[in-house]
Amino acid sequence: MIKVDLILHNATVLTMDTDFHQYDPGAIAITGSLIRGIGFENEILQEYDAENKIDCQKKVLMPGLVNAHTHVPMTLLRGLADDLRLDVWLMGYMMPVEREFVSRDFVRLGTQIACAEMIKSGITSFADMYYFEEEIARTTAEIGMRAVCSQTVLKFPTPDAKFFEESLEMSREFIQRWKGHELIVPSVAPHAPYTCTPEILKSTAALAAEFDVPLHTHLAETYFEVETMRKEQGMPVIPYVKKQGLFEAKVLAAHCVHIDDGEIRTLQHLGAGIAHNPSSNLKLASGVAPVKRMLDIGVNVGIGTDGPASNNDLDMFEEMRLTSFLQKGTTGDPTVLPARTTLLMATRLGAQALHIGDITGSLEVGKRADLILLDLTPIHNSPRFKHNPLGVYAQIIYASKASDVTDVMVNGQWLMRDRSLVNLNEEELLLNGQDYAKKIDSFLIDRESSILSKLIAIGGASEEESFEVQAKVKISDPGRIRKALFNEDIEIIRERHYREFDLYFFFTDVEQGLIRYREDEFINADGKIDQVRSRLTLIGPTREDEFDKDVLLSRSRYLAPATQSPRFYREYFKPHLEKEIEKDRVRYLVHFKNEDFFINIDRITKPDLGFFLEVKSRTWSRQDAENKSVLIAELINTLGADLSETIQEDYIEMIR
Amino acid sequence: MIKVDLILHNATVLTMDTDFHQYDPGAIAITGSLIRGIGFENEILQEYDAENKIDCQKKVLMPGLVNAHTHVPMTLLRGLADDLRLDVWLMGYMMPVEREFVSRDFVRLGTQIACAEMIKSGITSFADMYYFEEEIARTTAEIGMRAVCSQTVLKFPTPDAKFFEESLEMSREFIQRWKGHELIVPSVAPHAPYTCTPEILKSTAALAAEFDVPLHTHLAETYFEVETMRKEQGMPVIPYVKKQGLFEAKVLAAHCVHIDDGEIRTLQHLGAGIAHNPSSNLKLASGVAPVKRMLDIGVNVGIGTDGPASNNDLDMFEEMRLTSFLQKGTTGDPTVLPARTTLLMATRLGAQALHIGDITGSLEVGKRADLILLDLTPIHNSPRFKHNPLGVYAQIIYASKASDVTDVMVNGQWLMRDRSLVNLNEEELLLNGQDYAKKIDSFLIDRESSILSKLIAIGGASEEESFEVQAKVKISDPGRIRKALFNEDIEIIRERHYREFDLYFFFTDVEQGLIRYREDEFINADGKIDQVRSRLTLIGPTREDEFDKDVLLSRSRYLAPATQSPRFYREYFKPHLEKEIEKDRVRYLVHFKNEDFFINIDRITKPDLGFFLEVKSRTWSRQDAENKSVLIAELINTLGADLSETIQEDYIEMIR
Repeated sequence: MIKVDLILHNATVLTMDTDFHQYDPGAIAITGSLIRGIGFENEILQEYDAENKIDCQKKVLMPGLVNAHTHVPMTLLRGLADDLRLDVWLMGYMMPVEREFVSRDFVRLGTQIACAEMIKSGITSFADMYYFEEEIARTTAEIGMRAVCSQTVLKFPTPDAKFFEESLEMSREFIQRWKGHELIVPSVAPHAPYTCTPEILKSTAALAAEFDVPLHTHLAETYFEVETMRKEQGMPVIPYVKKQGLFEAKVLAAHCVHIDDGEIRTLQHLGAGIAHNPSSNLKLASGVAPVKRMLDIGVNVGIGTDGPASNNDLDMFEEMRLTSFLQKGTTGDPTVLPARTTLLMATRLGAQALHIGDITGSLEVGKRADLILLDLTPIHNSPRFKHNPLGVYAQIIYASKASDVTDVMVNGQWLMRDRSLVNLNEEELLLNGQDYAKKIDSFLIDRESSILSKLIAIGGASEEESFEVQAKVKISDPGRIRKALFNEDIEIIRERHYREFDLYFFFTDVEQGLIRYREDEFINADGKIDQVRSRLTLIGPTREDEFDKDVLLSRSRYLAPATQSPRFYREYFKPHLEKEIEKDRVRYLVHFKNEDFFINIDRITKPDLGFFLEVKSRTWSRQDAENKSVLIAELINTLGADLSETIQEDYIEMIR
Repeated sequence: MIKVDLILHNATVLTMDTDFHQYDPGAIAITGSLIRGIGFENEILQEYDAENKIDCQKKVLMPGLVNAHTHVPMTLLRGLADDLRLDVWLMGYMMPVEREFVSRDFVRLGTQIACAEMIKSGITSFADMYYFEEEIARTTAEIGMRAVCSQTVLKFPTPDAKFFEESLEMSREFIQRWKGHELIVPSVAPHAPYTCTPEILKSTAALAAEFDVPLHTHLAETYFEVETMRKEQGMPVIPYVKKQGLFEAKVLAAHCVHIDDGEIRTLQHLGAGIAHNPSSNLKLASGVAPVKRMLDIGVNVGIGTDGPASNNDLDMFEEMRLTSFLQKGTTGDPTVLPARTTLLMATRLGAQALHIGDITGSLEVGKRADLILLDLTPIHNSPRFKHNPLGVYAQIIYASKASDVTDVMVNGQWLMRDRSLVNLNEEELLLNGQDYAKKIDSFLIDRESSILSKLIAIGGASEEESFEVQAKVKISDPGRIRKALFNEDIEIIRERHYREFDLYFFFTDVEQGLIRYREDEFINADGKIDQVRSRLTLIGPTREDEFDKDVLLSRSRYLAPATQSPRFYREYFKPHLEKEIEKDRVRYLVHFKNEDFFINIDRITKPDLGFFLEVKSRTWSRQDAENKSVLIAELINTLGADLSETIQEDYIEMIR
């Protein structure tokens, strides 16, 4: 009899080894972190002995699940914002909140909550990608889970680094310190081809290759990403990153929704693993990855939850079921991705995709004891048929729930017994998580309470205020006005012709002002468009003052280049009303009696309101504003327009 | 103060009424089966008083979920067979097992298990369709759930009726007895257009209309169904059933995966409800229903689990999440089917689809108290953000699990308190369910142990055995044989020309024999195919006897028309090897010395084996067989073939 530390027996043992051995009743013998023996109960009990023998009460004993792609600290952002388009979700909510809140403390708590949830749903290993990754690694190791922890590098400032060189240096130090750890495999994560420069892709690949650790990245997640790559680089995503030398490292590629057979073959040939994330790909409307083709071609495809902010949980049972369902539903063939294959993806293939297949992912002698017990007797999973050995896999994939996992062991250590977590205090985590939620709630409530702060949150550009004095006159003959400009008192400094497309957002709280999205098309001398510019302006609700002859002092509170589409701003600001104006404008910068003025000869084309003359000037003091208001009236007179035709309303106010 | 029976307070109340009122903290006052008051906690506690006041500890209090389409007794067939094509699953497994096992006792136990599971996952109402529906109704009413119970009618024999007239009469009596019941709405279910005659569709619609009860059916579930309807009726499914007068009744149509905008408008116009079943539609590879279009056009679309044999559970949280995910993923727009809309489908819209929207589906004064308490604090659903009132719906749809439902009330009665079922003994149900599973297991193990019994299980036709004496000779000049037939001793009774395509299935256990799938194309005098016939034959492994000159006595154990495709039989019988033969055959029925013989002049074209002469005769006794074996040798001689060239092997044995 060989002495071991622990024997688990009286279980339906699913090994998920290459022959899919099942032992029922089966048993497993464990010493330290390693599996020493596995087989039928009677054989194991004859060959091995242990003081600690646990009767598994006919539960399923199987490899722990491998969550092949996630961002664990984002548990603290779960349910923050949903049902939004990717850009609004990311740039309107996730990134501003991350900029404000993500810290070592944040990632530590988020990791603890995620590990609690993952252990309770039968996950023993995961591949993470986030900021402050060393803190995530330390927290995970303390809890006792196995993980590939990947420090994010990208070309923008992040919560943990201003420049990518810092992230890269952080990654190197992190990998050096953790390489060889019993539970943690350190790794580097160039975020995605579209958020990384070629230099970042090259240097992260070189770093991962130097230390022989995995490189974790997002590839070909959306159709838009692939189309942009084709347009800009003349090739799809996989050839592009190959060209940058990415595959010199052992790659774990998340998503791969939009790749073709040729690209799948490249990934297979170069030994890359894929993490399939069905919930996230559907919820963010990215699409359905060609998983069946990936498996046919022989890629190691694992299954991942992605981050809990885009899922919204870390439940591999949901992901497994969805993986089977989606491939059947989209190929039209109900025999594809049968239950056993899907469970294989979530265990051994997943471990291989993470490049840790040599130590985990299946129950085999010599591998680490990463295992779970699963109860197949709950009412939602009864009865149990035994006429077909494939039935047990179908029970797991199609009817088991995360809550049916009763016990979890990683590296020979129990992390959950009978649904109680060994190393984590759930109540404390819930309370601390709620503290963060309250802070983030009030940050967002503050922000949402003011259009200005919402604008600043996504702006990036600094706030600007400008005051203008201006007057507007309805005219009937713009030609006459243009002729009148050739006057000895008026010096024309510059003339430009453009078309302006203005989209106004109105809000129920009129005190907030309104937002104008303006697109200017500059028309050159040949009548062709030679430049386009978009700007976003928050227009204050009140006029500051009014002078004689309807000359007004107005305030534009904020002015920033519009980097997003009108659709983005619409979904982000959620106006209760929108209006559009189009106009043809000839704009002159003139010098008149020692002051600069802008003269606009406008034709409002949509709706058709006719011609207008506007005279404006920037101003910084009340005295200056009063002086200029007199000069504006004079200038209008000089140009031959009728001062009795002045209009106080903005163009936008003229539309009923 | 108004006295009521019960007040539930300190809850986040989601009414799902037309204004989506939320009360947080909210309360609800209940008297008998009815909601008397609902609103903010302080208002309700001021207006109403009750001895029984329950503090909901800040849980979500919301309408119970409506499972819009299921077959509850099929819990007893859950996991029986998975990852199969629809026909193999249905005709190979479900129908044979149902024929053998479905009884009053079966449906009663299956209903109890289903109700236990549904209550535990927050379902308060469901629409069922099965056999012995009155037993289902009685069981459901005893347990205390609300249901639309639909007695199935179809053109084939069913476990509860030989002919459809019996089912129809049963439906009438069932509806008469149960109409007006507090919990049960009786209904009739013509199974589907392709399993019902026009007469069945007409008469069930008339019956439902006569009693003003719902009619429950499956419509346009698969592309194949729609294409067949188009071919055979020149129109898609909805116009066809409309033509049969189906919409004279209040229709609840399950699936509707393959319908276009025009058909959706028809359903809306005619007041039909739709039950969307995303898991089942994916698992059986039917496709993704156009739910967004249905909602845009204004149909009442509910969400259903379908039967637990094709899902494999009754978990509306899974179905809700999948409904949102699928519409986002397939439309490419992550803003469609936002969480609140999906929850609406699973509550008020679902009740409306079932035509019980006047009494349930939302929490409103005057409606029945059908409600659940849901805990949003588990670790997989934390933290909770409150900056956006839509957040709570997203928590429910994207991160809540069935196991988070703590309490369930139907019609003012508690069915579950703190996750304990009030009226059902789970352990007993599990034991009784397992008894059935054992019986079904041994039925299937018996069946699977023999090719013959597998064949009989799907045959429908009766077993037939036939004995033949036969001899075969290789020939080089078929023309000479044909000429030799014009002999005064030979009377040609019939001549036919056909091409035969034979597909053979071989099994590892050769004692089982082999299966031949034969397709005969009859060629007429003009050389054209005028008939096609398919037959399935189980060929015994041994020859019964051998006479002089290689004349053999052989036995064909079973012969039945092949109603399914070769693909069906391949997936059903799972042979370990397949071979194909194609031949051109001229077959003569001749009279020779007072006996009938078949003479085949064959050319084996695939593989190319050349020409053969076969002479055969049916036989019933050993003496007769011996006599005929002598005559066969004579006949071969008469035809000028060389008796030294006789071959014992079947054609299939000649292929190496």
